[in-house]
Amino acid sequence: MDPSAISIPPLKNLTTENITENVHLINTHNKPSPRLSYVLERLVTHLHDFARETRLSTQEWMEGIQFLTKTGQTCTDVRQEFILLSDILGLSLLVDSMDHPKPTHLGATEGTVLGPFHTHEAHHMSNGASMSHDPEGEPLLVICTVKDTAGNPIRGIKIDLWETDSTGHYDVQRPEVNHGEPDGRCVMTSDEKGCFWFKAIVPVSYPIPHDGPVGQLLLKLKRHPWRPAHLHAMFNGAGWDPLITALYIRGDPYETTDAVFGVKDSLIVDIETVTDENMAREYGVDIGHKLLTYDFVLVSEEESRKLREQQATEALEKLGRRVKIVEGLPVPDLD
Amino acid sequence: MDPSAISIPPLKNLTTENITENVHLINTHNKPSPRLSYVLERLVTHLHDFARETRLSTQEWMEGIQFLTKTGQTCTDVRQEFILLSDILGLSLLVDSMDHPKPTHLGATEGTVLGPFHTHEAHHMSNGASMSHDPEGEPLLVICTVKDTAGNPIRGIKIDLWETDSTGHYDVQRPEVNHGEPDGRCVMTSDEKGCFWFKAIVPVSYPIPHDGPVGQLLLKLKRHPWRPAHLHAMFNGAGWDPLITALYIRGDPYETTDAVFGVKDSLIVDIETVTDENMAREYGVDIGHKLLTYDFVLVSEEESRKLREQQATEALEKLGRRVKIVEGLPVPDLD
Repeated sequence: MDPSAISIPPLKNLTTENITENVHLINTHNKPSPRLSYVLERLVTHLHDFARETRLSTQEWMEGIQFLTKTGQTCTDVRQEFILLSDILGLSLLVDSMDHPKPTHLGATEGTVLGPFHTHEAHHMSNGASMSHDPEGEPLLVICTVKDTAGNPIRGIKIDLWETDSTGHYDVQRPEVNHGEPDGRCVMTSDEKGCFWFKAIVPVSYPIPHDGPVGQLLLKLKRHPWRPAHLHAMFNGAGWDPLITALYIRGDPYETTDAVFGVKDSLIVDIETVTDENMAREYGVDIGHKLLTYDFVLVSEEESRKLREQQATEALEKLGRRVKIVEGLPVPDLD
Repeated sequence: MDPSAISIPPLKNLTTENITENVHLINTHNKPSPRLSYVLERLVTHLHDFARETRLSTQEWMEGIQFLTKTGQTCTDVRQEFILLSDILGLSLLVDSMDHPKPTHLGATEGTVLGPFHTHEAHHMSNGASMSHDPEGEPLLVICTVKDTAGNPIRGIKIDLWETDSTGHYDVQRPEVNHGEPDGRCVMTSDEKGCFWFKAIVPVSYPIPHDGPVGQLLLKLKRHPWRPAHLHAMFNGAGWDPLITALYIRGDPYETTDAVFGVKDSLIVDIETVTDENMAREYGVDIGHKLLTYDFVLVSEEESRKLREQQATEALEKLGRRVKIVEGLPVPDLD
């Protein structure tokens, strides 16, 4: 493309007052996709309003530039500092809640933040296998089902599960311990009864990585970096809305002060103990073994799509924005 | 600091509707600096409103995370992709215009975007020296003065000057050409008549670096990456408001479509030719040599501070925000 061949409106003498409308003009002049236009128009408006309402100084702007640069450069194959930033600013929770609305009145399991530690390296495991090899972890038997909102078991759902070791670190944070092999994570498939069960360790609370820019920001805000003990779970299956969630262990000291805003009452679980001899035999554990059970409920893609689009339209109408849904996402309705 | 010793309000069951106020609560609970509190409150509000008004999807959020990560990782010692991003979104121009307001009715020279190519490596040069060693560049004699708004010359002002070579690249973009030595840039000091003069080359238009994430974004927006030909200049001196500006060459094909919104009529200059024999002799050039002259006018720190604070207070009052100025920047006035 010859860049000089692109015509744009005359842009000169831009000021605090007229810069925003002119950026919109140039961004929309050559008609990029309607969704990109809309997202950029909102992004630039909010970015400029943020600067105008704070009268952001050049020095603060430069600190921001350096903060974002360092955040990007702290990211590696196994560390995602921008997701952490999104998490501690509440953006991750917000996006998940809009994108995966749950008809909780029908018993659908609530979602929560993905966090930066999901990987695609986990091995597939069969029912009964152990996903943690940490000898210091307290062994935990986890027995779950996955059903639809009518109570029918769903078979063939792919479930990603991940948690830290007993020191509060994910495998990717301590590759030297497992020689780069995945640990504390696995992928399972629900059986014909919608069941999946496995052996793990009792989750522990841990601080999110706070030796980088996000940790510096938390320190300046005098916020702690801790997350209450939890076990991550993600559900995927054709026709089902992906469920990204986690189970939180009741009574954790950080239960009401999660640094990333993830805790929901419906996701708080008790750690119990195996007391029944038949159960102990069936699952190959001793009496007194720690036990966690949970019944997950998925919603269909169709159900979720309808709810998402309905909520989007209603929320945007409330904000005085007339939109239409195109490919599942709102764009201004200019007709 | 023992993180568990920090008390924060109970945070649980957060939703699209209540997440924002709860992030504010935790961010302000332990009373960080008033300015940080204010900036974060505005940042989180706008970030969340942006997500809510676009109903940002998880996939788009992840694309954003990856875009920001790549932008950070494209930065090096000699490339600042986040400044480029700020430039093409109009934020840089906006921040400069608020932070360095100019009483143009008194003839003060207008500021413009710094850009990502200023360095601290340039050598100091005396009047008459040449800052460009590019044999392909068209030689240009530059004669300037720097004065106050009353027309008095200012001596001892430190002036950073920088421009590209004849191919449109700054020295840091082609270290192999100059073996890492600064070129196309220098630092000068105004003499007792407020004068500084030097030899450069006629500036050329050039595209901002567009082989990275910012270039990708411009492409998606169908925007060109070109900047009209210009010569950067930055003025610093005790008691004077720093002036970051540039001179644009009249008639450039990108004069009205600068990718970073920097052009102002008052900064557009004509390239003339030396016609006077005395002048040619005085400055050691031939008749017909290209010539650029400009008289810069600085405002005092005090003048600038007053104007900045007055504009900030007025603008924020217009927005219905009651603020007071603390250390030069607005914070909410809660009294």
